[in-house]
Amino acid sequence: MDEQNELAKKVVEKMMQDDLFSHWLGIQILEIKEGYSKIKMKVRKEMINGLGIVHGGIAFSMADSAFAFACNNRNNLSVALDTSINFIKPVHVDDELVAEAKEIHNGKSTGLYQISITNQRNHTVALFKGTCFRTNKTLL
Amino acid sequence: MDEQNELAKKVVEKMMQDDLFSHWLGIQILEIKEGYSKIKMKVRKEMINGLGIVHGGIAFSMADSAFAFACNNRNNLSVALDTSINFIKPVHVDDELVAEAKEIHNGKSTGLYQISITNQRNHTVALFKGTCFRTNKTLL
Amino acid sequence: MDEQNELAKKVVEKMMQDDLFSHWLGIQILEIKEGYSKIKMKVRKEMINGLGIVHGGIAFSMADSAFAFACNNRNNLSVALDTSINFIKPVHVDDELVAEAKEIHNGKSTGLYQISITNQRNHTVALFKGTCFRTNKTLL
Amino acid sequence: MDEQNELAKKVVEKMMQDDLFSHWLGIQILEIKEGYSKIKMKVRKEMINGLGIVHGGIAFSMADSAFAFACNNRNNLSVALDTSINFIKPVHVDDELVAEAKEIHNGKSTGLYQISITNQRNHTVALFKGTCFRTNKTLL
Repeated sequence: MDEQNELAKKVVEKMMQDDLFSHWLGIQILEIKEGYSKIKMKVRKEMINGLGIVHGGIAFSMADSAFAFACNNRNNLSVALDTSINFIKPVHVDDELVAEAKEIHNGKSTGLYQISITNQRNHTVALFKGTCFRTNKTLL
Repeated sequence: MDEQNELAKKVVEKMMQDDLFSHWLGIQILEIKEGYSKIKMKVRKEMINGLGIVHGGIAFSMADSAFAFACNNRNNLSVALDTSINFIKPVHVDDELVAEAKEIHNGKSTGLYQISITNQRNHTVALFKGTCFRTNKTLL
Repeated sequence: MDEQNELAKKVVEKMMQDDLFSHWLGIQILEIKEGYSKIKMKVRKEMINGLGIVHGGIAFSMADSAFAFACNNRNNLSVALDTSINFIKPVHVDDELVAEAKEIHNGKSTGLYQISITNQRNHTVALFKGTCFRTNKTLL
Repeated sequence: MDEQNELAKKVVEKMMQDDLFSHWLGIQILEIKEGYSKIKMKVRKEMINGLGIVHGGIAFSMADSAFAFACNNRNNLSVALDTSINFIKPVHVDDELVAEAKEIHNGKSTGLYQISITNQRNHTVALFKGTCFRTNKTLL
């Protein structure tokens, strides 16, 4: 298990290095384990939509990064097939978001993950789920 | 109908003006009609993920903007409840994407929209659907 | 809380009485609380599909019943808007399934629920989520 | 193409023969082509839920059958991974439903299908989408 977690960290370190959009989002890694990730980011003004609240694409993008970091970290390159997100509470500028990705199913060819996003008041603002396809290529 | 389409254009003009994240994405409006929108954007380098292709959040964000422009444009403020996206083909830097939002159902309290994203070779790269809740507040 | 749970039980008792399809499925109520339900059923031969395993509609139908029993039980008539289900493991004839519905969000106008279905070996066979719209009509 | 359509019909004939739940539903095949299916059924009293309208599981089950008939009919055994359904209008006893499954994407390892269900007044009552995984086993 420790070895698996070490591998998971190395894979995500490599992914994060090349992930320019996650850099733009300001994503920071909090914890990586096999099939698991926890990340944070702070919402900035350029992330709002035309209604004055944070664009739904920001919460989705954060969850999608957490999903990618969780589902790829056994060093088995995996691509998102079908994802969905429920928007539960509005997100505002300066909110500090945490996304936690948990593995629901680790299949040979596909996987299922659930990601919750909470704000600084520990309210769940969005719930994401994602199904990925495993290519059996490596990342490292 | 013409009057409705005029209103639709005005609502989206106002939304777009304040939508800083759609600006960052480089979204341009191609066509607005009642319950309908068509937009385009060009993919830039800072939009890639850790696997060298475009981050799933970019396609989602573009579709979510098209969704918002379609579902709000009767001047009835509507918020996204539940959305999903299927990723069909990878998106690359310099791709020119078009998102078209069509209304499947215009209910009194909720609405259902489908958004397809195609690239410059007219391949569908992603399919999005979104359910919104109508607040009965106005935008203009 | 006890009063709420008493009301929840009465609402579901009434719903179950009239729910002819849940009768056909063989659904039995295990536990009802405010915003929560737990039910069971045993899979029969007439529930299989053309591939010899249980039809996906059976797992969905069971989850949808659990969803209805959870989201309606504050005596606020609620209708399903958008639901999804992930199929994790095949279900077989004679399997004994338990579906547990938990409330993720209880909004004024909408709600979000998650339902997991497990078999007699305590394996999760399917994961369902549902968004409902609250009509503010009563059931009792 | 004609040959492919002939194969498609044979595969679905075999599937339908063994599909006891589709029999219970009263499903009849209207048209089968490669990657496509169209089926019909009439709603019976034992299909209602506790609110007096037709149980959501019935529309889902019908769509799921149409999905299976479309995604398996190249004789490549395919299993549902992730499906969702939006409920647009209530369905009533004696309604005559038609479900039409169209292929959005036919990938090597996965596929994406969309199924619309209409009633006898040609109103869309539900919209389903499904992602399947292709096992590369045969059905015939």
